[in-house]
Amino acid sequence: MNIDRVFHALGDPTRRAMIEKISEGPVSVSKLAKPLDITLAAVVQHLQILQQSGLVHTKKVGRIRTCRIENTGLTVAERWISDRRSLWEKRLDRLGHLLTEPDEK
Amino acid sequence: MNIDRVFHALGDPTRRAMIEKISEGPVSVSKLAKPLDITLAAVVQHLQILQQSGLVHTKKVGRIRTCRIENTGLTVAERWISDRRSLWEKRLDRLGHLLTEPDEK
Repeated sequence: MNIDRVFHALGDPTRRAMIEKISEGPVSVSKLAKPLDITLAAVVQHLQILQQSGLVHTKKVGRIRTCRIENTGLTVAERWISDRRSLWEKRLDRLGHLLTEPDEK
Repeated sequence: MNIDRVFHALGDPTRRAMIEKISEGPVSVSKLAKPLDITLAAVVQHLQILQQSGLVHTKKVGRIRTCRIENTGLTVAERWISDRRSLWEKRLDRLGHLLTEPDEK
C-alpha cells in the first residue's frame, strides 16, 4: 500500500469525518453522506480515494453499498509515524549517553 | 494541537520527506533543503507548516537554524488513528459475540 496515497487520503477533513463515522460501525453510502454538506457524487469520489488507499472497503448487496473500515491503510500510517518516533528517540538516547558518559567515568 | 493541521501537514510528500530526514537527527535548514528539489523559500514555508502543527521545532543559534522533531504532532496523529482502529475493533468484537451467542446456548 502506497504511503503517499494513505496520507493524502487522511489529509482531507471530509475524508477523515467519513472514516470517523465508518469506524463506529458499517454504514451505507447514503447514511454516510447525510450529515456531510456535499453532493453524493463528491461522497462517492472521496470513497474511491479511501478505497484506493486501503482505508475503507465497500460492498454492494442488492441496491445498498455498505462501507467498512479496512485496516491496511491505518496500519501503513501508524507504522510510518511510529518509525519516525522510534528513530528520533533512539537518536535522543544516543545523545543522552554521550552527555552522561563523562560523569560515569 | 489541531488534528486538521497535523494531517494536512502530513499529507504532503515533501513535508513527510523533511520529517523523515529530521527524525534521523537534528539538521540545519540548509542541509535539510539540499536533497529536496525546491527553493529555500519553499522549504521555509513547509517548515512553518510543520512547526505550526507541532511536528517540528526549530531553533536559531548564531546564523544556523536547526530542526528537531517535536512529538506533539506525531502523538495527535497516532491517537486519532488508534482511536479509529479501537472503535472499529470493539464494534467487530460485539458483532462476533452476537454471532456466536446462539451456538453457546
